[in-house]
Amino acid sequence: MEHAERLLSAASELFYRRGVRAVGMDDVRAASGVSLKRLYQCFPSKEALVVAYLERRDERWMSSLTGYVAEHGGSVEAVFAWLERWFAEDDFRGCGFVNAYGELGATSEPVREVVRRHKQRLRDHLRTLAAGADDPDLLAEQLLALVDGATVTAMVAPERATAAARAAGAAARALVTAACRG
Amino acid sequence: MEHAERLLSAASELFYRRGVRAVGMDDVRAASGVSLKRLYQCFPSKEALVVAYLERRDERWMSSLTGYVAEHGGSVEAVFAWLERWFAEDDFRGCGFVNAYGELGATSEPVREVVRRHKQRLRDHLRTLAAGADDPDLLAEQLLALVDGATVTAMVAPERATAAARAAGAAARALVTAACRG
Repeated sequence: MEHAERLLSAASELFYRRGVRAVGMDDVRAASGVSLKRLYQCFPSKEALVVAYLERRDERWMSSLTGYVAEHGGSVEAVFAWLERWFAEDDFRGCGFVNAYGELGATSEPVREVVRRHKQRLRDHLRTLAAGADDPDLLAEQLLALVDGATVTAMVAPERATAAARAAGAAARALVTAACRG
Repeated sequence: MEHAERLLSAASELFYRRGVRAVGMDDVRAASGVSLKRLYQCFPSKEALVVAYLERRDERWMSSLTGYVAEHGGSVEAVFAWLERWFAEDDFRGCGFVNAYGELGATSEPVREVVRRHKQRLRDHLRTLAAGADDPDLLAEQLLALVDGATVTAMVAPERATAAARAAGAAARALVTAACRG
């Protein structure tokens, strides 16, 4: 594996698990086995490393979700079925973007931007699933709230994660039915 | 003002605005004008100070919400009208509990517990508003997701905060109507 990939892979796991402020460049060096000099050649600052982590996470998270939804007939229900699986993963610790924003949103414009872009990509995807509604933008905003809200519950109360995904999925179904009635 | 109150007040503002890891005991000392010795007498560790901040925030946040809802006829809509006002406050920076959990949830059991208690109190309140539904627990879980999800959008995309509160409110109304049909 290339140095940059080894570093990013180690950083991603640490940042997601422990939070971005809790992890120093030296932790990334130790976990990756790549020298600190090489680390700074690849990522000149910790902020650059955090942004790279979030960009890669966006890419993988969105492609996992959209791939699953496409395989399951492009339905809104599939989004919540995918969430239920994600919540059950061993290393699930909530939305990496919301967590990073909560930590660095007050100080880092590049972090803010990558988080905003991710949520906009998610909203756009939900908008395509909501295309048949009378007001697809409104329905997409509501579905996004259900996704983010269920994710908060799954993080804070892991024992309720499955119930939260299913409750949000049932709400989404009811909203889709009501919105496509017109 | 008493020392403990001055310390807690300064710490609360700093923790909510900048995040809990970004603020050191010395920042709290400087902002409060209380000596470090007295600070450690009142709050023997930073964790104790973070827990006190969250407990006070829970008290004030819940009583503002439930007071507003009671004044507005105890309707579910009032929850989202209150959210819209909260999102518009100058110092709004998302849910202080979710942000603290994202930062310290991996390491601090006391922080985890106070965040879980807060979300449970919010769920219980929504459950009382959902009492007329066929399945009040399910409706309360769905309303909680809408509240937390709209709060995430309002944090990450402040220019969409009002729209997010209204979209979530409209979703809540539709879910209440559907759930009380039986």
